[in-house]
Amino acid sequence: MIPGQGFRLLELADRFGGKLIGNPDVLISRIATLARASTGDISFLSHRKYRRQLQATRASAVIVDAEGSMETELPRIVSDDPYLYFAKVSQLLNPPEPADAGIHPDATIGTDCDIAADASIGPGCRLGSGVRIGDGTILGPNCIIGNGTSIGEGSRLFATVTVYAGCTIGRRCIVHSGAVIGSDGFGLAREGERWLKIPQVGSVVIGDDVEIGAGTTIDRGALDDTILEDGVKLDNQIQIGHNVFIGANSALAGCVGVAGSARIGRRCTIGGGAIVLGHLEIADDVHISAGTLITKSIQHPGSYTGVFPFESKRGWARNAAHLRHLDSLAERIRSLEKKLAAMERKE
Amino acid sequence: MIPGQGFRLLELADRFGGKLIGNPDVLISRIATLARASTGDISFLSHRKYRRQLQATRASAVIVDAEGSMETELPRIVSDDPYLYFAKVSQLLNPPEPADAGIHPDATIGTDCDIAADASIGPGCRLGSGVRIGDGTILGPNCIIGNGTSIGEGSRLFATVTVYAGCTIGRRCIVHSGAVIGSDGFGLAREGERWLKIPQVGSVVIGDDVEIGAGTTIDRGALDDTILEDGVKLDNQIQIGHNVFIGANSALAGCVGVAGSARIGRRCTIGGGAIVLGHLEIADDVHISAGTLITKSIQHPGSYTGVFPFESKRGWARNAAHLRHLDSLAERIRSLEKKLAAMERKE
Amino acid sequence: MIPGQGFRLLELADRFGGKLIGNPDVLISRIATLARASTGDISFLSHRKYRRQLQATRASAVIVDAEGSMETELPRIVSDDPYLYFAKVSQLLNPPEPADAGIHPDATIGTDCDIAADASIGPGCRLGSGVRIGDGTILGPNCIIGNGTSIGEGSRLFATVTVYAGCTIGRRCIVHSGAVIGSDGFGLAREGERWLKIPQVGSVVIGDDVEIGAGTTIDRGALDDTILEDGVKLDNQIQIGHNVFIGANSALAGCVGVAGSARIGRRCTIGGGAIVLGHLEIADDVHISAGTLITKSIQHPGSYTGVFPFESKRGWARNAAHLRHLDSLAERIRSLEKKLAAMERKE
Repeated sequence: MIPGQGFRLLELADRFGGKLIGNPDVLISRIATLARASTGDISFLSHRKYRRQLQATRASAVIVDAEGSMETELPRIVSDDPYLYFAKVSQLLNPPEPADAGIHPDATIGTDCDIAADASIGPGCRLGSGVRIGDGTILGPNCIIGNGTSIGEGSRLFATVTVYAGCTIGRRCIVHSGAVIGSDGFGLAREGERWLKIPQVGSVVIGDDVEIGAGTTIDRGALDDTILEDGVKLDNQIQIGHNVFIGANSALAGCVGVAGSARIGRRCTIGGGAIVLGHLEIADDVHISAGTLITKSIQHPGSYTGVFPFESKRGWARNAAHLRHLDSLAERIRSLEKKLAAMERKE
Repeated sequence: MIPGQGFRLLELADRFGGKLIGNPDVLISRIATLARASTGDISFLSHRKYRRQLQATRASAVIVDAEGSMETELPRIVSDDPYLYFAKVSQLLNPPEPADAGIHPDATIGTDCDIAADASIGPGCRLGSGVRIGDGTILGPNCIIGNGTSIGEGSRLFATVTVYAGCTIGRRCIVHSGAVIGSDGFGLAREGERWLKIPQVGSVVIGDDVEIGAGTTIDRGALDDTILEDGVKLDNQIQIGHNVFIGANSALAGCVGVAGSARIGRRCTIGGGAIVLGHLEIADDVHISAGTLITKSIQHPGSYTGVFPFESKRGWARNAAHLRHLDSLAERIRSLEKKLAAMERKE
Repeated sequence: MIPGQGFRLLELADRFGGKLIGNPDVLISRIATLARASTGDISFLSHRKYRRQLQATRASAVIVDAEGSMETELPRIVSDDPYLYFAKVSQLLNPPEPADAGIHPDATIGTDCDIAADASIGPGCRLGSGVRIGDGTILGPNCIIGNGTSIGEGSRLFATVTVYAGCTIGRRCIVHSGAVIGSDGFGLAREGERWLKIPQVGSVVIGDDVEIGAGTTIDRGALDDTILEDGVKLDNQIQIGHNVFIGANSALAGCVGVAGSARIGRRCTIGGGAIVLGHLEIADDVHISAGTLITKSIQHPGSYTGVFPFESKRGWARNAAHLRHLDSLAERIRSLEKKLAAMERKE
């Protein structure tokens, strides 16, 4: 690495593998799309539909697969998985913004806290008592950490994250602004016309390497805990109900809602806006399409969907009207079949 | 009650009724699920599917119905509604965390405020002018209260709640972090290609015993007010548009959206992710399933639903393709019926 | 204008046009609905269904169209578009609440900031370094502005808005509480079972006259930028993924989700709770119904929808069951047609 100038292409190949073709000394300081790249940028071809852009790019080097390698003269690294390779290079070239270690004078810290010396607590943060913050963990401005909550080493909470009392967040986690962790689950018992609140005395336990998006909310358990295993990735504005369990390395896209006590397996993916009802189980390696409502347990790995296809308003009006009469349509088919069978017998 | 140790079972029965069977002196200090309970815990059987756990539980006592009572030897309270009974016991055993009365020095208070002496205003709170905070009301850290807003006695706003100017929140309300009350409704008038903003000069009026979940947003009225009656319960990430009315004791689950000027009756329930369009009326005692889109008024109490059932991606592709041709399928059935009738007439 | 008393009706007509009928000197100090209006109020008839209220209103004056004008004796302004006229009068009568210029002592300001002298920075605001705040721009309490972010003249951020580093917000924008701008997009590459985070190094660029609702989140681009053109209006709790482009004067209602790299044209409208999948293009002047999932590009202007119609739970159960058998229903119709054709040939 040449400070202030970037990495030689050879250094990237040494670090991340792949086959280097072309000038090994070309300097790489940024990563960019094929369309926007210029001198000093490395780019990548992750999908065949961009191959035309590969011809035209002004990048200094590209990351390609074997097929793509034959379509360019540029200095390049050939990898089986250019997208993953790009991710690694991008992490190298774009380390997280550092933060000053120490507690900002405009933060408020409760009693009996254990805050690592090289943690960074931003202005306006409000920590309760008995809070533990691990080595190198960064809290952006105006974060709230409730009594007795613990955050592991190397995590980062961006500004305005709120964590209630008694929660546990693991190591190397990232939590984005506006996220709320540990709020009360929606636990109510009917008493005549009124609702009686059920105290939510469980907690939230989040593993290592979890990322939580902006505005996402994760409720604490009613009696037991809400649990996110290691490597879970939550996009923005996701709602996780009380006592939900999400298995390791599952990834949920924006606006997903998971109702109370649902249990989601490992390595699952859930598309944006999908809703998972409560008290059901989803097996490992299940993939749910965007916008789908999951109303019962899924025992087998695989892909599941359930959305009404859109069309022009006129077409929709014509077709959707029949949905209310499917039962009678089916009945009319049965009746036709019977009559026809009777006629055939007569012949 | 024995301070630091809990309540004798008899004390619970005296307080909340029910029939006590077994040792009245067993000490209860916590509440737990059947599976997790140990000595000192009381548990409960609210659904038949957990009856096996009743056999195995190590709870010191249980709350059961008459049928469950016959399936355990443990000290127990027999109640018609074990879940409601559990809620009451849990409230007794888990009172809300107290907060220090007074205004934190790191809070900012406007002019002409009327803040009860035993209210608690956390660090980083920013109160405008003319704000009224009732007896015993607690504002967590970094809450914002706009000019002229009033919050009744015994309410609690967790950290990072934002209430705009001129709103009214009743007594014993709970508002969770990230909630926003009184933001502008989405009022726009078209002027050629552009949109002209319509000032939102109504307010938000919230009754007593209302709970509002994390990240929920409630817009102020355009001209008149947005109204939540007593006992309304809103889960997380709900959006309530301007001029919406929600009747007493209705409960809305997470991620529900209610568009402007919708009027929802009393004792309604709305499942997670449902959307209620604007300018329509929903009667009292209407129950709407999760994920349902309500496109017109509902005059009669009852249960309503409208979701596309999910299946494996392959099955969906095979069946959903026909949705665009329902009209022609129906036409073909009609045509078959005609032909068959003609043939029958000939015979 | 008579200070403290309002405007004469003539002054409104002089300013905004329209035909004045009746007493030009009647004083107007507020705007109200027909039902609630009293002396000093001007009201408006924007929809025929309120014409009865026009008869009964106690407003001092009304804004009506030619047809409405014949149904009232009140002093009135006749306009082709009473709703737009009302918007203009309301803006005049309800100017935004002013704020004290200057930086509140409880705000934290980084180095090398360029904050206009008449900007207003509320208590608890945390500005990074290199921030630029334009003339007359108001930041409510507890707003966060990341390093190098720029906000143009005359904009207003209500309390508790978070803007990450390196973003650009234009002039006369309004951002409501709880909104988060510039959070990381959901960029992940699979590495075996685990997900590798892709640094999100693009930014968010927002034009002039954009309004962003409470709790709305807008992710920064992965490599290029997320872009909102001039005049875009976003309601509450909308999620905008990384690298999304939204064309000028498009308006999105509450709870909409737009996935990464979607491109939405100009003057589009999207109803509440709709989801737009990623990497697709929507033409100008497309109107999407509430709750619709857009799964592919839309090339032509027009109205599109795709929602399952709701009904009573019993009716739904009867009809929806057939959805899983549409393919076999279609097959049975085909088979009937063949048999019937065979019989007809025989005759």
